[in-house]
Parts: sequence; structure tokens; C-alpha cells
Amino acid sequence: MTQAAPLAEIWRGPFLESVHAGHAVICDGTGQIVSAWGNPDAVVLPRSSSKMLQALPLVTSGAADTAGLGAEHLALACASHQGAPRHVDRVNQWLSDLGLTDNALQCGPQESRDADLRIDMIRAKKSPCRVHNNCSGKHAGFLTLAHHLEAGPDYVAPDHPVQTACRDAFETVTGMDSPGFGIDGCSAPNFATTMHGMARAMGWFATAGQRSDRLSKAATRLTEAMYTHPDLVAGDGRACTRLMRASQNPIALKTGAEGYFIAILPRHGLGIAVKAADGATRAAECAIAALLVRLKVLHPAHPDVAAFLNPAIVNWDGLVTGEIKPAPGLMA
Amino acid sequence: MTQAAPLAEIWRGPFLESVHAGHAVICDGTGQIVSAWGNPDAVVLPRSSSKMLQALPLVTSGAADTAGLGAEHLALACASHQGAPRHVDRVNQWLSDLGLTDNALQCGPQESRDADLRIDMIRAKKSPCRVHNNCSGKHAGFLTLAHHLEAGPDYVAPDHPVQTACRDAFETVTGMDSPGFGIDGCSAPNFATTMHGMARAMGWFATAGQRSDRLSKAATRLTEAMYTHPDLVAGDGRACTRLMRASQNPIALKTGAEGYFIAILPRHGLGIAVKAADGATRAAECAIAALLVRLKVLHPAHPDVAAFLNPAIVNWDGLVTGEIKPAPGLMA
Repeated sequence: MTQAAPLAEIWRGPFLESVHAGHAVICDGTGQIVSAWGNPDAVVLPRSSSKMLQALPLVTSGAADTAGLGAEHLALACASHQGAPRHVDRVNQWLSDLGLTDNALQCGPQESRDADLRIDMIRAKKSPCRVHNNCSGKHAGFLTLAHHLEAGPDYVAPDHPVQTACRDAFETVTGMDSPGFGIDGCSAPNFATTMHGMARAMGWFATAGQRSDRLSKAATRLTEAMYTHPDLVAGDGRACTRLMRASQNPIALKTGAEGYFIAILPRHGLGIAVKAADGATRAAECAIAALLVRLKVLHPAHPDVAAFLNPAIVNWDGLVTGEIKPAPGLMA
Repeated sequence: MTQAAPLAEIWRGPFLESVHAGHAVICDGTGQIVSAWGNPDAVVLPRSSSKMLQALPLVTSGAADTAGLGAEHLALACASHQGAPRHVDRVNQWLSDLGLTDNALQCGPQESRDADLRIDMIRAKKSPCRVHNNCSGKHAGFLTLAHHLEAGPDYVAPDHPVQTACRDAFETVTGMDSPGFGIDGCSAPNFATTMHGMARAMGWFATAGQRSDRLSKAATRLTEAMYTHPDLVAGDGRACTRLMRASQNPIALKTGAEGYFIAILPRHGLGIAVKAADGATRAAECAIAALLVRLKVLHPAHPDVAAFLNPAIVNWDGLVTGEIKPAPGLMA
């Protein structure tokens, strides 16, 4: 975690109140580093930014086709969704199609991040369910693969066929052995790799449409699912959804816990990995927006871009008291 | 913001997932630095960690005595409270005693951080009020002083007599001119100073009981109010409250937004100022606990200390997936 470079600044009035450092790597389709900030060799857990890697075996195995999954299912498999009705209803239907219920999910229950649904559930005295967990689509994908492989129900065990398939895919596309895993917020293993490894994987995803092997075809299908359904990948107000929509060319974006963020840019043939070394989401969102502006993928004046690139800090009474902005050198 | 030193580490399984850097200074009653990490000359906004400085004019002016304020009122004036019934009811009564209502508060409305009250209010379809704002006690103190000074209702204006009195007190006890202010989350000016300036002020507070001047007497009264009513300074589960209670000797602790934390240690005659450079509360809480263990003020095995010094990271399903711990060299 040494050599982190400045990513984002927090200003209040005339004072630089806080500053975020981290690592960022842009790779092309061959895995070569195009630009880097911080330490490309830093080993990091990409958390939910690796969901499209974890979804590769779902497609390559044939499980997705056998189960009749469409682009909406695949977008949800790659999602950290809001637990809004549009997400919860689709995952519940998917589980029902598998002959399963919420109980089959190994992720824990999480309160919905959708303000209206959360308030409705509080008023109706309903407890959060596993399907409301932001990872429930990924887990529905795991269950689909486990069923296809005729494997047991404990699909988050690191030696379960679902997870060994995920690890194989992860190591193939990052181009290196993973040094190990941590247990994620949803109880699934999350495999570690370097910043370069993750950016290499994103560059590989971005150029998958130029190749015809099974793994590349699966990557293209997942990337297309993400940018076709940005509202399913995250939700209203969220960075992934708003920034994907703000791009004129199709791009896939995915946040991860503890300040991770990735971008897949098929038109440019580039992939990006960002990690705020301190784990701050506000820094990762600002930095990924700045890098996408740098690459002319996003326009800084677009309201949905400015909302993350240079958001106002607003206090309890609605006064603007400061702003977040990218560290010098990141955007241009 | 240069030269920040490591303060706290975030581990997930075998991986150092994130790391927080910042500044920490320990000062004695003469303002001499006893120990320091990072940059003592870093200029920072101490945010709510400066509330006991902002409350000094309330006492020195005679306003507190004229209004008949007791230790509970003074603890609330120094508080970032939870907006629990115990806080809200006392501030409402205080306002009523002044012949005022919630409408006189210039802080904006904030949803209660007390889980039961928040849920009750959602079910009763009640909107958050200004009195629920974590700063409502500080603002009740401002209103009390404004009334005593026969000054106007816009008590958060930087040139209002309440705020010029706050600035005078702030500069006196930090021992230096403030380079300016930012507007805080509650709309009041928040004066900037160096880490050394803030630690000097805390050392001055810690030794105030040894002096008989009016300002020192006010400081002693505020410090005693804080450690006599730790539940009013923050609330259930909060670091200030739990760590003050965990100390065998009376100490006063106060968190501030964007990773600030201070400690006043009368028995040791020492003051501490901590700032996580990235603004992370989890880092400031871990670091202040580590420094208090270092000074043998707190015991690392006490459950309320361990909860901030070395908390487990628990996922949605209740599994322990990692831990937070102080950076090497901070605790010993």
C-alpha cells in the first residue's frame, strides 16, 4: 500500500480539509500499462468490482443458457444493486425459476438502500431479506451455476466447484495467480490481485469483442448486459448507473467496497482499475470520473458526471460548505 | 496535509485492504509537544472537536449562570449528540426556558441517529427537526449567549457577537491567530488552526483546574460537564461516550467530522489532537483509543476500548471478515 498518489481533495471554504490517496492503472487489451498513478504492484482485494469476473463461469459453463438467462439476469449477476423493487422482484423471480427461495442465498440480509422501499418496510414492520442484499444477483448466478454443475448448496465455500471456477476465471483474465482471498461482505471469497492485474483484466474485457474464444465471448456478453441495463447494475442516484448513462459510447462501470472502481471501455480498448488506499468511496467515484474525462469518455459539464467529479458538499440546512475535486494531474 | 503518518489499518483475511494516515499531537499544559505523528504544523478544521472552545464564551460571559445552566446543559453545548430522546427532550426544554422553539435554531434538520426514535418517527410520518441535529445543544448555547449579549437572532453570522467571542476564545486557547474558517455542517463558522494549536488548547484545558483565571475556570466547568455526562456528549454505542466511561480517571473526549478527535486528560495534564488526513472516523476512533492506551489512560482489553482500538469487521451474515487495528508505533 506504499506509494499511493493523491486522487481526490475535500475542500471546505478556503481549506483543504481532507485528501485521499490511492492507486490507478489504465491498461490496453494486451495488458500493457497506458498510464498509472500510485503503485501498480499493490495487491488489493477488488471486492464487488470483480463481479463480472465472478460471473464468467456462469456463462462459459453453459449454465446461463441452460437456465434461459437474459441480459437482465447477467446485469444483476454483475451488480451491487440498491435493493429497489426493480432489483428485488427480478432476483426473486430468478430464484423462483430455479425452484428456490430467498433462503437458498448465502449472503446475509441487508436493509434496502432504496429510500421509498426502506421506509415502506419500516412502516410495514418487515425485516430486510437476503434478496435485498446488494449481492443477491451475484448469488443467484452462483446458485444457477451450482445447479448446472450438480454441486451442493454451500456455494460460497472456497473449495466448492462454483468458487474454484471463479478463481480459475479470475486468474486467467488477470493474467496471474491470485495470492489468496478474503471473505466478502456477502460471505463469498473475494480474490486478491495487483492493481495491474485488475486493470489488465479490464483491458481484456474491453477488447473481448475482437476475439472469438469462449471466455472472451462470455466477457462481451456480460459487458453488454451491464451497459444495456445500467439501472440494474446499481440504481437511482448511484455512480455506476449515472456515469454509464452519461457516456455517449457504451461503457461498463463497477464500484467495489473500500474505494475500488473499475471501467471497461470497448470503444477505446482500455480498462481502468482504481483503489482509494483509505477505502473511501467518494474518492474512488471522483477518481474514476476524472480518468473518464481524461480519456474523453465523459464530459465534465454533464450533470451526472459533475455530481461525482466535482460534487458540492451541502450541509444539513442546504448550504454549500465545500466541494470534492480530483487531485491535480488526474483529469488532465 | 503533507507528511501524514500511518494511523490505522483495515485488514480482511490475510490482506491489508486499506490504510489510514494522518496527524496526532500530544501537548502538555505549557503547549510543548510531548509526542507527535505526522505534521504538527498541518492546518486543519477541528470541526465538532472544537465545541468546548466554542462554549467558553457562554460561561465566561456570565450567560450560563444568568440562564441557570447546569452541567447537563454545558455537556450538551459541547456535544455531537445522537438526537436520542434524552438529548432532544433536554434541548427542547432549554429552548423553552429561553422562551424559544426549535425554529430559533440555525442548524438544519437532521434525522435522529437513535435507531428506535428514527424508526418511530418514520412510522409516525414525522419529519426530522432542527433539535434532532447533533449540534442542537451547541446552538442552544449560542442562543443563550446571544440573548445575554442582547444580540440579534442570526447568531451564526461570522461577524455576530457570539461568533467573534468564539473566535477570540479559540485564538486565545490555541495560542495563535486562526487563519480563517469554514462553514460547518450546522452552518456555524468553524475556525481553523494547526494540529499543534489544537493539541495546545487541549493541554490548556487539561491543566485549567490548576489556574484561577476566568477562562480557565470556564474550561474546567465544561470539561467536568463532559465527563460527568458522557451519555449527553454523544450517545449509546458512540466512541466519545463509551471511551469516557471506560476510563478510571475522568477524561473528556470529543469527535469531529472528517476524522478529527480530541482528548483532555486532567490527571495527566495532557491534551491530544488527532486528524485522519482522509477524513475517516473509523481511523480517528482507532487512533485516539491507541494513544489513550499508550498513555495508560485506557486498558486495551476493556470491551468498550477494544470496540474502537481493534474492532472486528462483521459482514451482513454476521461473519467476522476482518479487523481494524492501530498502525505500528501508535499504541506503544
